[in-house]
Formats: sequence, structure tokens, C-alpha cells
Amino acid sequence: MSLRMVDLIIKKRDGKALTDQEIAFFIDGYVKGNIPDYQVSALLMAILFKGMTKKEIVTLTDKMEHSGDTIDLSMIEGIKVDKHSTGGVGDKTSLVLGPIVASLGAKLAKMSGRGLGHTGGTLDKMESIPGMRIAIGEEEFIKQVNDIGIAIVGQTGHLVPADKKLYSLRDVTGTVESLPLIASSIMSKKLASGSDCILLDVKFGAGAFMKTLDDARELARTMVEIGDALHRDTRAILTDMEQPLGLAIGNALEVKEAIATLKGHGPKDLVELCTKAASIMLEQAKIVTSLEAGEKLVKEVIADGRAFNKLKEFVKAQGGDVRYLDNPELFPLAKNIVEVKAEKSGYVHSINALQIGEAAMKLGAGRETYDDVIDLSAGIVLHKKVGDYVAIGDALCEIHTNKENFEDALKEIHDAFVVKEEPVKVLPIVHDYIK
Amino acid sequence: MSLRMVDLIIKKRDGKALTDQEIAFFIDGYVKGNIPDYQVSALLMAILFKGMTKKEIVTLTDKMEHSGDTIDLSMIEGIKVDKHSTGGVGDKTSLVLGPIVASLGAKLAKMSGRGLGHTGGTLDKMESIPGMRIAIGEEEFIKQVNDIGIAIVGQTGHLVPADKKLYSLRDVTGTVESLPLIASSIMSKKLASGSDCILLDVKFGAGAFMKTLDDARELARTMVEIGDALHRDTRAILTDMEQPLGLAIGNALEVKEAIATLKGHGPKDLVELCTKAASIMLEQAKIVTSLEAGEKLVKEVIADGRAFNKLKEFVKAQGGDVRYLDNPELFPLAKNIVEVKAEKSGYVHSINALQIGEAAMKLGAGRETYDDVIDLSAGIVLHKKVGDYVAIGDALCEIHTNKENFEDALKEIHDAFVVKEEPVKVLPIVHDYIK
Repeated sequence: MSLRMVDLIIKKRDGKALTDQEIAFFIDGYVKGNIPDYQVSALLMAILFKGMTKKEIVTLTDKMEHSGDTIDLSMIEGIKVDKHSTGGVGDKTSLVLGPIVASLGAKLAKMSGRGLGHTGGTLDKMESIPGMRIAIGEEEFIKQVNDIGIAIVGQTGHLVPADKKLYSLRDVTGTVESLPLIASSIMSKKLASGSDCILLDVKFGAGAFMKTLDDARELARTMVEIGDALHRDTRAILTDMEQPLGLAIGNALEVKEAIATLKGHGPKDLVELCTKAASIMLEQAKIVTSLEAGEKLVKEVIADGRAFNKLKEFVKAQGGDVRYLDNPELFPLAKNIVEVKAEKSGYVHSINALQIGEAAMKLGAGRETYDDVIDLSAGIVLHKKVGDYVAIGDALCEIHTNKENFEDALKEIHDAFVVKEEPVKVLPIVHDYIK
Repeated sequence: MSLRMVDLIIKKRDGKALTDQEIAFFIDGYVKGNIPDYQVSALLMAILFKGMTKKEIVTLTDKMEHSGDTIDLSMIEGIKVDKHSTGGVGDKTSLVLGPIVASLGAKLAKMSGRGLGHTGGTLDKMESIPGMRIAIGEEEFIKQVNDIGIAIVGQTGHLVPADKKLYSLRDVTGTVESLPLIASSIMSKKLASGSDCILLDVKFGAGAFMKTLDDARELARTMVEIGDALHRDTRAILTDMEQPLGLAIGNALEVKEAIATLKGHGPKDLVELCTKAASIMLEQAKIVTSLEAGEKLVKEVIADGRAFNKLKEFVKAQGGDVRYLDNPELFPLAKNIVEVKAEKSGYVHSINALQIGEAAMKLGAGRETYDDVIDLSAGIVLHKKVGDYVAIGDALCEIHTNKENFEDALKEIHDAFVVKEEPVKVLPIVHDYIK
């Protein structure tokens, strides 16, 4: 007997698990246009309320992954590692991690995105460097990774059309916030991108999609189970996004911070995160057999300049002007650079990452709609982080913008800082490691 | 700031109540085609899970009622009463109740339907009588009610387009079974039909949409509250649909049973239900001031032939051949009339109304799709009801069909009867009265 979509909706609505055959029918039918949006949105809402079993989520991810092309990286020698962040404010880790692990022999063949948000995506950040090309054909992409160990490019091919259709629909039907749908969306794209190993950086806190550590842990565990079930070495770290990551928020500003970090002058939390993440990726790539050994190597390649040199090779290979790496003062500055000053003395207890991110977008650093043009020089540079002491009149941060009206953003940024008399304990940025 | 449908979906998904303005935006936008099906189905699923407040349901019903034309019955003198049944197996009450209350001075200006189901709707049943017209213009409709107190016709005009669109969508998106959506769907149509008073016959049990008394009571209470809030005298009775109503299931068979009932020879449960319902409607029409007085009048008009004469006037006014009323043996019989016999002795404990209804449809009495043609002579006549004693070999019922393959239906009907040794107490058919 042939399947009917309405029966799948009713089954899920009543809290029952869909079979592999039913999930295949749904994804295949939706991508082919045989199942209308109005039935899919009803199913998505039922999934949001009733959840899915691990088995259902694995099957859903698998069917989504194979709904279009998948990238074949088998022509690249060695173990291919990939990293995915669930997104936060000031997250420039890909630009730091990539050169580090590539300089130690892991292969990073990464497809990245732009997306909407407080700042641009990794591709936008890369484009801060004049000449940098992100549209590279598959053959050249593979050759580059074989030659120098790293390439980060825009997505090519017809990857995961099921996710494109589902995500557009979820966006307008109130069904974004569903763990099975979030996990399958992220993992289907990562799996289709073809790497052998995946490290997930799942953020939690004010500036992250997941607001609590528990929610982030559940998402991370689910995605690790999906990856393992579909035969990829998948691991996750849970990292704090209560305050922005590092000091820089904004595209060129973040690239400069990534350069500084690879030169050994990175902010503490960013260095901590990248060291931990890189050591895990090195273990996944079987270059080290312990995280301790990995961390030691990471520190070495930063200290002796190999990581920074790998960044230069990477930028050069993709047409970027490497003079900007040696002389970051070449990056053009925004017209207005204004300090935000503390109005009382004390210790910084929190810096609301969401408010900082929204302010950065207002200053020109991000995109609200796909048509928005990003101002690559705009953003915020923090002078103080959580735990720091600040005296009245000290700069909490500085804003960079070419806009003339930034009073609202200034106020929002000022209000994002919570300063109290008593000192505060700073926790490690990586709260958990799941494998 | 203008409303966005996605925000309404999220609000309802998160368990919050929609404002009057938001509900108006949704209904108006959907009927005008400005809001797509895929957003509406997501909202419907969120309503199914999260419910609606009484205030929301009243507003929803009001906006649906006024989404198209409404019937103006003000040219009819006197108090207009209407009855709605949530549907069951063997339900021919409209054809009995209508003539009774009209013979006592209440005005019944009823629009009825066909619909899908185990047997036809009231309109199909009426068409068992040769010549009976159900397509009557508004002017003639109003004149007929003024002249003889009763008309039952097919729906005219562009009534409640919101319900048409919503119901079609609910049907294919697993969102039929939602109390606020059921209640607003029924009540918006009843209100748009223009009567002053509404009596709801809410069925519960195996053969009803609501399977339990509690669910039926909640639906009834909700609909009564809606009607009262929107200024109509609305009341409800909760009636048993565990076993079929009366003895006849099938269109012409039911008309014959209605005729017999109006002549004073009706089956006990049907007489009980119609007496109670008619007395309530008479109280609503202010013809009596107590149900006891109403019941006394109902018994009188059946005993002295006034109710049956009103049926004849009604059939004649709509072009039907009244000879069939005086001589019901004129109704053509199906080719095959076969008894279903008891295989053991004892008391009938239950007769599964759903199974009987499905069997009747298989015998030709109902419609599975709107294209199906009903066999008006087909159906089932029960010889035994719950509580009756039956000896081995006694007929439990007889089937009427023009089909040649009816073995499946016979087995299904036989299995619908549960016969046990011990006697069983028969409860009154009307379990509760809500006003």
C-alpha cells in the first residue's frame, strides 16, 4: 500500500516514530515537489512538539544528506578533518584552527557560508583580505588541499537540497527551534561535504542559538550520535558564548585578531578554544594519540611561526594579498572609532554577547537580509573581558563604524557590560568535550 | 507595526493567546489568499497542541462566521430554531424533530449538507422521497418557513469560506482533531445560518467523532459558550452513539423509520432523543416554559397526527411525493435482503456503531469520496438493540444491498454484536443537557 503524507503527520502528531521508509518517502517526495509545503510544515510542527527518536534523526539526516550531490574528497590524501560552529559573536576560530592543523599534516577541505547574522560568515571575513577568492572549482579545491593542506571555499554543487527547502520553510513557520531538525540540518550538510572527521563547536549562552549548557549538550550529543551512526569520527566541544569570543567583533577586525593569534598574541579565551579544538582535530586525524600531545604541538607551531606561515600559504593560494598578513595596519579603518567608557569602577561580571552582536550589526558588520552589503571594516573591539577590573572612565571597548548615527548602538553596548564591586571567577571557555 | 504570520505561529507554539487583532489578521489574510497554506497548517498544528482560550475561540468563530455571506432570517416571523448533530450512525433526528417543533409553532429554517460518511446526509435522505427538491432560492425558502414553519434545503450563498479553506487544509494535515478548531468550524456555520436558537446534539461513543463522554462534554460546553457569547440561545445534549440510533441505517430505510416515528411507532431510543430535543427547542422558541410541558406537547402532536401532517406539508412544499409517506411500502427495496443470525444465545451487550456504519457504507449506503453515488435503498435494519435477549438463530439484523459481494460486510456486522449470558442495564440515550 502506498504511503500518504497525512498519515505520517498524524503518526508523528500522536507521538509515534516514523519508519525509515516513511522518512525516505517524506524527504524524497518533498525534494521532488510531490509533497506540498503545507503538509511538510504541519509535520515539522508535530516534530517540534513530539521530537524524534535517535534512529529517526539518523535516518532523516542520512536521507537529507543524499537528497542531492555529495562531495567526494577521496582524491585528497590523508585524513580530512572539518569543524563546524553553531555560531556566535566574534567567532573567528576557522581562520585560526585551519592553518594550525594544516601545518601539522591534517587536511582541511572546508566549505563555508555567509549567512545572516551579527557579523558575516567565514567567507565574508576572508574577503576582508583583498584578492581572496572563495569561488573555486572542485578540481582546484582538491589540488590546493593536496598541495598545502587547507582550502576554505564557498559551497559548490547541488548539496542537500532537502535542507535548503526545509530551512526556508522552517524559517517562516515557527519550526526553527526543534532539536531533531537543527541536528539533522547541520549534520546533513557536514556529512555531504565529505570529510572523514567532524568537530562540532556547540556554543551556549546569551550570544548563542542554544541558551543553556543543557540544551547545547543535548544538541551536541545528538549530532555526535548521528555522525558516529553514519560512520564519521564526530566529536563536540561545548563552549561559552555568554560573552563574545576574543576581543574583535566584525569582519576585518576579526581577521586581524586571527592573524595576531597565529602570531602568538591572541586573546586568552580564543587561544584556549583553538588549542583545545586543534588538539582534538589532530587526534581525529591520527597525528597525535592524546590531547596533551596535540596541545603541545599546537603551541609549538604557533611559537615557531609554522601556523602563521600556513595562513600565508592559504591566503596566497586563494589569491589574497599576503602583505595584509605581515602588515595588518594595511586593513582600512572605519571613519568613526569611538570608545565606550565605564561609568563605574569594579569587575566586569558579564558582557551580553547578543546585545554586542546586535550592536555590531547596527554598526554595519552584519546582514539582516541577504541583500544587505556588509561593511567589512565595521565592528567592535573589546578592551575588557569578563573578570577584568575597570576604573571609571576606562574604555570598555571601541566601536568602528562608517555610519553617522551610532548613539543607539553605543548605549546598547554600554548596557551590555555588567560591572560589580566584587571580583568574579572566570571559567574555562570549553565546558565539556563529547566523543 | 504590521503583523507577521510567523510571529502568530511562534506565539501560539509557545502557548500564548492570540489577540482579537491577530485572529482577524489570520482569518482575513487566509481567505483573501495573502497568507499561504503552509503557514496556516503550522498554526493549526500549534493550536492542536496548545489549545485556545475561550476568548480566542469566540473571536475565531466570529471572524470565521463573517468571512463570507450570512443568512438573514429576519423576514421570518417568530423564533427560528436550529439543530446540529455532530454525526453518528442511523441519525435521522432532523426529519423527526423538524415536523414536531414546526407543528407546535417553532420556525425551522434549516440548511443542511450531504458530506462523506456511513450514510448520506439529511439532504440525501430527503432525496429518497421522489420529487423532493433541496435546491431552493432564498426567497422561496423564507416564504415556505413563514407558510408552514419548516424548510430544509441545501446551502446557498457564499457561507463561511474560511471554514471551507480551513477544513480542506485540516483534512490533509492531521489537524482535524482539535477542540477549538472543531468547535469554531461547527459554530461558525450554525451562526452564519441565521437562526436565533441552536440546539447541539453532541454524540459520543464508538460511532461518534468524540469517543468519550468527557470529550463530548468539553466540546459541547465550548460550543454553548461560543453561541452564548455571540448572542444566540445555544444549548447542547450529550447522546449515546455506542450503538446505532434507532433500528434503520441507510437513506430510504431511515426515512421510513422517521415516518414511523412521527406516526407513533418509533424505536424507543429515537423517540426518547427526539422528545427530549424537541422539548428543549420548544423552550428555546418560548412556546413552553418547562421541558416537562414541552414533552407533553411533543407526545400529543405525535399521538394526534399533527406532527405527521406537518411532515406531509413539508414534503409537499418541497415537491416530494406524499404518497410515499402514507404508503412507505412504495419505497423500492434493495435486491438482496439477508438476515444476520445470532450464533449464541444471551443478551446484546453492545453493537459497535462504527463497524455497523462502515458495513452500511460497503453495502452502498454512504459516500467515501464526493464522487461516489449513494444507493438510497441500501443499508441495515437492526432487529435487536443493546439489552435485548437473543436466542441462537434469531436475526440480529438484516442487510439491504444491491451489491453481489457482501460477505465481508456480513462478517463485520456479525462481529459488531457482543452477546453475553448476563443481562445488561440500558442507560437513557441522553446523558447530559448543557445550557
